[in-house]
Amino acid sequence: MKNKFYQYIQNLQDQICAGLEAVDGTTKFREDIWDRPEGGGGRTRVIESGPEGSGVFEKGGVNISAVHGKLPEAMQKMFGVGEADFFACGLSLVLHPKNPMVPTVHANWRYFEMYPLNDSGETPPSGAGGLSWFGGGQDLTPYYLFEEDAIHFHQTCKTACDKHNQDFYPKYKKQCDDYFWNAHRNEARGIGGLFFDYCKANEDMSMENWFSFVSEVGNSFLEAYVPIVEKRKNLDYTAAQRTWQEIRRGRYVEFNLVHDKGTLFGLKTNGRIESILMSLPPHVQWVYDHHPEKGSEEEKLIEVLENPREWLAP
Amino acid sequence: MKNKFYQYIQNLQDQICAGLEAVDGTTKFREDIWDRPEGGGGRTRVIESGPEGSGVFEKGGVNISAVHGKLPEAMQKMFGVGEADFFACGLSLVLHPKNPMVPTVHANWRYFEMYPLNDSGETPPSGAGGLSWFGGGQDLTPYYLFEEDAIHFHQTCKTACDKHNQDFYPKYKKQCDDYFWNAHRNEARGIGGLFFDYCKANEDMSMENWFSFVSEVGNSFLEAYVPIVEKRKNLDYTAAQRTWQEIRRGRYVEFNLVHDKGTLFGLKTNGRIESILMSLPPHVQWVYDHHPEKGSEEEKLIEVLENPREWLAP
Repeated sequence: MKNKFYQYIQNLQDQICAGLEAVDGTTKFREDIWDRPEGGGGRTRVIESGPEGSGVFEKGGVNISAVHGKLPEAMQKMFGVGEADFFACGLSLVLHPKNPMVPTVHANWRYFEMYPLNDSGETPPSGAGGLSWFGGGQDLTPYYLFEEDAIHFHQTCKTACDKHNQDFYPKYKKQCDDYFWNAHRNEARGIGGLFFDYCKANEDMSMENWFSFVSEVGNSFLEAYVPIVEKRKNLDYTAAQRTWQEIRRGRYVEFNLVHDKGTLFGLKTNGRIESILMSLPPHVQWVYDHHPEKGSEEEKLIEVLENPREWLAP
Repeated sequence: MKNKFYQYIQNLQDQICAGLEAVDGTTKFREDIWDRPEGGGGRTRVIESGPEGSGVFEKGGVNISAVHGKLPEAMQKMFGVGEADFFACGLSLVLHPKNPMVPTVHANWRYFEMYPLNDSGETPPSGAGGLSWFGGGQDLTPYYLFEEDAIHFHQTCKTACDKHNQDFYPKYKKQCDDYFWNAHRNEARGIGGLFFDYCKANEDMSMENWFSFVSEVGNSFLEAYVPIVEKRKNLDYTAAQRTWQEIRRGRYVEFNLVHDKGTLFGLKTNGRIESILMSLPPHVQWVYDHHPEKGSEEEKLIEVLENPREWLAP
């Protein structure tokens, strides 16, 4: 499964980068291959048009990595286990478009294997005594709310889920709302999508079934996001709307640095910092005590973030 | 002591704001008085000239607060105690100048009382069974290194310390370097200053002595910072230098949101978010894998941040 899933995310990275370059129009991803001293490494791909560029994506990355070795202490605590070996691989992407009418998107699909060490200090063979699970999801962070975009994104998520289990969409939609909650602001980071974790073999789902589900979601990403980009990328916007986007990007930074487990885990376990913090937006503002005007489009967004909505009819 | 110290920081806030308005030249602080539902409140003062303004300070705040009530759970954990009542008051300031030749500065002076609850659930009277301590410090974060500025700042810190104990400056200088360490970047946030905490009554220092020391440092702030601002505020700078400043401000955000105990404590204990995050810079950039050119002024700064220096002859 390790090899199968890593093969899958390698191909998915190629597909997604090609799809995003096509919609961007002008900018290409550049690639950094890196090694992790403790074992493994990754392939980081970054697209940076900048705020004055003609491309759609001011900054973004589509990264894969496969790392292994001794489970770092911070992770032992997180999982409530003692010493163990581990293997983890995944694809992680964040895209920050220049135009405030185009939403930011984040997605991640990952696979984890953990091998608790025997008393003898030896690792049991993979599978026997090993633990493995999938996790991931995709979620949208608009700066201006187009309800039809939110519905399209969620419908694409639901269609992928429904092929596997009718309970998945409502369950993982709620988990997404719960996870991407900027608690100190009392608002969601965005308008949600899917979030799932610790997807382990059980009576209903073998690991093969989970692979099939996770890759279904991965394969739905371009369909979920690209039509929205196409629709909004040429809309006009004002300097004030751009300022609003930069202020909202500040909330994105706050979530990622204060609450996001993946980011904090990476920062505290000697991950490759530039690949982890690729997720941070290019230009950001913090304005003291900023509030949108009553009845404005900006306020409409905040209302939806404070009260996460069901986007699809039950 | 509660009243005495709160009186002191009220006056100090007035003095510091007046001093900063004088050096800014055009912008005045605006004031927000706020209440904490669980007990206490504060007086937040913010100065925002913006990036196009003629003032020196693009954004900054000089805040005081005095809060009390049940010790929040997060804080019980931090102190390793059970249920308790507490009182805390302090002044906290951060100033982000527009001109990249002028350093950002941070300072904080605080006083804390904790009253562990008896088994009966009753609070012992203040002083009897209560615990109290001072904490604080001041530190400088330049974007371009002027060694004479670093020396001036540290010399002012040392002069204040030496009046009380010859060991304080070296001890609190080192604690400052240790505390403001951006571990995930392997570099200091800035060029340091003083950091002290849990200053409790002991054989050498009564609480009165500590008050005298802490207020000595507080009183030295304007002398430590304002001459540097005066010297650098009218220097020319390029767009590239401004970009460098905004990128470095990103590191400031990273420290405050990932590592700073005060910020995280505030965010997790229902503090007044806008007063806590007043510390975040106004305009910030994240550029993927940015490195200064070899031999540049930018690289010289990084060298000092990676290897904290002794600024004063022993």
